[in-house]
Amino acid sequence: MQAIVFDTKPRFVGDHPDPRPAPGECLVKVHTAGICSTDLEILRGYMGFTGVMGHEFVGTVVEGPARWKNARVACEINCVCGRCDMCRTGLPTHCRKRTTIGISGRDGCFADLIAVPERNLHVLPDAVSDEEAVFVEPLAAAYQVVKQCPVDTRMTVAVVGSGRLGLLVAQVLAGTGCRLQVVGRNPHTLEFCEKRQIQSVSVQDLIPRNDHDLVVECTGVPEGMKIALGLVRPRGTIVLKSTYADTGSLNLAPVVIDEVSIVGSRCGPFPEAINALARKEIEVGLMVARSYKIEKGLEALEAAADSKNIKVLLRINPR
Amino acid sequence: MQAIVFDTKPRFVGDHPDPRPAPGECLVKVHTAGICSTDLEILRGYMGFTGVMGHEFVGTVVEGPARWKNARVACEINCVCGRCDMCRTGLPTHCRKRTTIGISGRDGCFADLIAVPERNLHVLPDAVSDEEAVFVEPLAAAYQVVKQCPVDTRMTVAVVGSGRLGLLVAQVLAGTGCRLQVVGRNPHTLEFCEKRQIQSVSVQDLIPRNDHDLVVECTGVPEGMKIALGLVRPRGTIVLKSTYADTGSLNLAPVVIDEVSIVGSRCGPFPEAINALARKEIEVGLMVARSYKIEKGLEALEAAADSKNIKVLLRINPR
Repeated sequence: MQAIVFDTKPRFVGDHPDPRPAPGECLVKVHTAGICSTDLEILRGYMGFTGVMGHEFVGTVVEGPARWKNARVACEINCVCGRCDMCRTGLPTHCRKRTTIGISGRDGCFADLIAVPERNLHVLPDAVSDEEAVFVEPLAAAYQVVKQCPVDTRMTVAVVGSGRLGLLVAQVLAGTGCRLQVVGRNPHTLEFCEKRQIQSVSVQDLIPRNDHDLVVECTGVPEGMKIALGLVRPRGTIVLKSTYADTGSLNLAPVVIDEVSIVGSRCGPFPEAINALARKEIEVGLMVARSYKIEKGLEALEAAADSKNIKVLLRINPR
Repeated sequence: MQAIVFDTKPRFVGDHPDPRPAPGECLVKVHTAGICSTDLEILRGYMGFTGVMGHEFVGTVVEGPARWKNARVACEINCVCGRCDMCRTGLPTHCRKRTTIGISGRDGCFADLIAVPERNLHVLPDAVSDEEAVFVEPLAAAYQVVKQCPVDTRMTVAVVGSGRLGLLVAQVLAGTGCRLQVVGRNPHTLEFCEKRQIQSVSVQDLIPRNDHDLVVECTGVPEGMKIALGLVRPRGTIVLKSTYADTGSLNLAPVVIDEVSIVGSRCGPFPEAINALARKEIEVGLMVARSYKIEKGLEALEAAADSKNIKVLLRINPR
């Protein structure tokens, strides 16, 4: 099969061996996949990952139990043991022995085929297109913010970072009716906010006043945390969504002095994300800048690193 | 009056001008004061403080409204405006215009006399000795941990750092009946834990397993956070008590990946602390290593920096 493989650098491989599903797994033919900032961090050494890249995708089950045959699916990325203390206490996304599709210990979806655990699959309704379905995984991660930190209309909320994830988080938060602003650097992405009638401000024009109840940090760079600390009010909360390979320097004294809470936030609920896309509550079509065939996967990775492009997709086996 | 003053370095001054209480303030004659790690951080530039040092003390009101006359008091350290958004919304310790005794914008208690707002005072019961009363402020800060993060008997909890504050936090947590261990470097302070029947482990012997529900970081150094991140379980909580002048390097990726919450924690409730000392629930006498007259204040500061000494006091105007 065709695949984009990373070891010390990313390569397109035309004859990568097909994956063989283990017991409890399905084989899925990938239609379309999305490139995420985490993929770009992997190119810089994040998680020391090697193998087939990619974790955001939509596809059709081509091998597996009869009930899944030909189902069009989205797929959760954490592959879990079901037996460790985390799995047994209701936190399977934190399984001690987990592998993570295209991120840690398991091949990803930038390929014709991927083998995934049956328990990770979610059937997609027809109302969600393939292009939209690629956003299920990152949109679920965006919904995790309001799952961890309930938001109401009285709250003043900022999203720092107007990239791929930031724009999804901003749309989820806009749905709560809170007083919201997005802080970003990139005029292209701030334009997107305007189209969605979400208030936005360029980081150069920002006057931090420590007056936001909740700040969601989605920049993907260590500097984002410093901006967030300038925005959050005493006893307020910063939700930290960025993962990056770098170790930044950070003075935590303001966290103690202002008794700020920092809440790490990773993967989220697929059903909420699928439902929101089916009901057209979240706009993702406007976020797609370009799409590439898998043979042009290296160009696609470069395009995804260019801030002009919000979201870049790989068309692998289009319907 | 006599005072220990810090500008670029600490000095004993024999003829410092007496403070003059503003409206709403009392003048307090200081009996005994305690040296805290924050005082040692101030010597290294923390908060850019200059003035009379010190914020932990017990004294007698010598000037002020009649109802306070001759009262023996402990004193909260945040001096607040009562009118800003924080004061009006029930968070006066986060007053936007606050000064903090001996830490920021206001003279401290390493002196014969100190002027403090009447609203900051708490009358001490006879059951609390002067030596014990010096611990009211840091013990209140220790109670703030359980105020912010309720602890129950099923929880596995670690205190990282067995210094002055760590030993107070450990005693407060021991009172909850949780499964508790203290992680420290200093054999003298770990001995104290043994005397109090609190399980302790030297950091060299620690095997971090990411299995603690709650970790309280009290080391006062940036490295403490790295140890805490090795102890906390996925979706667990780290309470951060340390403030220090240094900016440490910190990779926040584990916070996101494990969805850890970090809760900054500063000053706490005086009534709980006074009550616990009156009921002899917290042992502080054993923590006092040495006490010095104020003329020997610089020696006292050096002694407080020596890890052999848990707590060092200044006897200023003993009863």
